[in-house]
Amino acid sequence: MNRTIKFKPIGIIASGHTDPAKTPIQPVFARGCKGRLEVFPEYEQGLADIEGFSHILITYLFHRAGPPKLVVKPYLEDKQHGVFATRAPCRPNPLGISLVRLIKREGPVLYLDDLDILDDAPVLDIKPYISRFEVRDNARCGWQDDIDDTTAFRRGRRNYRGD
Amino acid sequence: MNRTIKFKPIGIIASGHTDPAKTPIQPVFARGCKGRLEVFPEYEQGLADIEGFSHILITYLFHRAGPPKLVVKPYLEDKQHGVFATRAPCRPNPLGISLVRLIKREGPVLYLDDLDILDDAPVLDIKPYISRFEVRDNARCGWQDDIDDTTAFRRGRRNYRGD
Repeated sequence: MNRTIKFKPIGIIASGHTDPAKTPIQPVFARGCKGRLEVFPEYEQGLADIEGFSHILITYLFHRAGPPKLVVKPYLEDKQHGVFATRAPCRPNPLGISLVRLIKREGPVLYLDDLDILDDAPVLDIKPYISRFEVRDNARCGWQDDIDDTTAFRRGRRNYRGD
Repeated sequence: MNRTIKFKPIGIIASGHTDPAKTPIQPVFARGCKGRLEVFPEYEQGLADIEGFSHILITYLFHRAGPPKLVVKPYLEDKQHGVFATRAPCRPNPLGISLVRLIKREGPVLYLDDLDILDDAPVLDIKPYISRFEVRDNARCGWQDDIDDTTAFRRGRRNYRGD
């Protein structure tokens, strides 16, 4: 299937993260990293009632990812894995999904915390985080299960120190 | 920002779901709905070690969604909400995210359960479900918090009765 699928951004990220090497790799390591999602005016109506949700899933482009690789060393471990068994940005389709905290909405602007997305990233979609859809108890998490929480936090937060 | 972002599918879904009106709306309502994700051979190497994970996040195209709407009535409720406060398919960029159960892998083919994705849907990305990244306790879930679990299951499973 050689079909090309085309999308247009519905908004853009404004964050303090301009250096990928100092950006936490996941929202759980990004507490205190505040920023905004600025939705383009023509889509503002689509945000109605989103302020009822404490968390949202943002789908965006890893706009500064390097060329795709099929085998990668993830940030949290020094062993290689297939890219689809990791969350590394250098994917065949460089799509990021981040589960961030929604602090408030002002018109077309969402104010966020736990933000691990690079400044200027084009946003493709926003979905509400709905606990009954999102949580699986007792999930088996492959190579990630061998990494303790302290190591994950240290490597995952990187050298982010706050604003 | 009028930039167009282009993706190419990395695989395709084979499921028993050919009638959208009889397809569960979320994986949590799709227990027993088995099917496959067939990754194209050129990406097979990217699947290495994915079999260690019990659940995966599939990002795909809602290839049979109608034209985008900014305000929708979701499946679980008869009130209107902004599309970004729902999981409805008729989004400006019709991107679906489904958290499904990975039963086994055979080469480039992933065997799945809890599958709520329509047959033939083009797949854009696969990510492992990693509990430490995905779960938020005490999330506030807006209009979804007003729907009890029994109603959600009845409306969310739709009239799917199994194969």
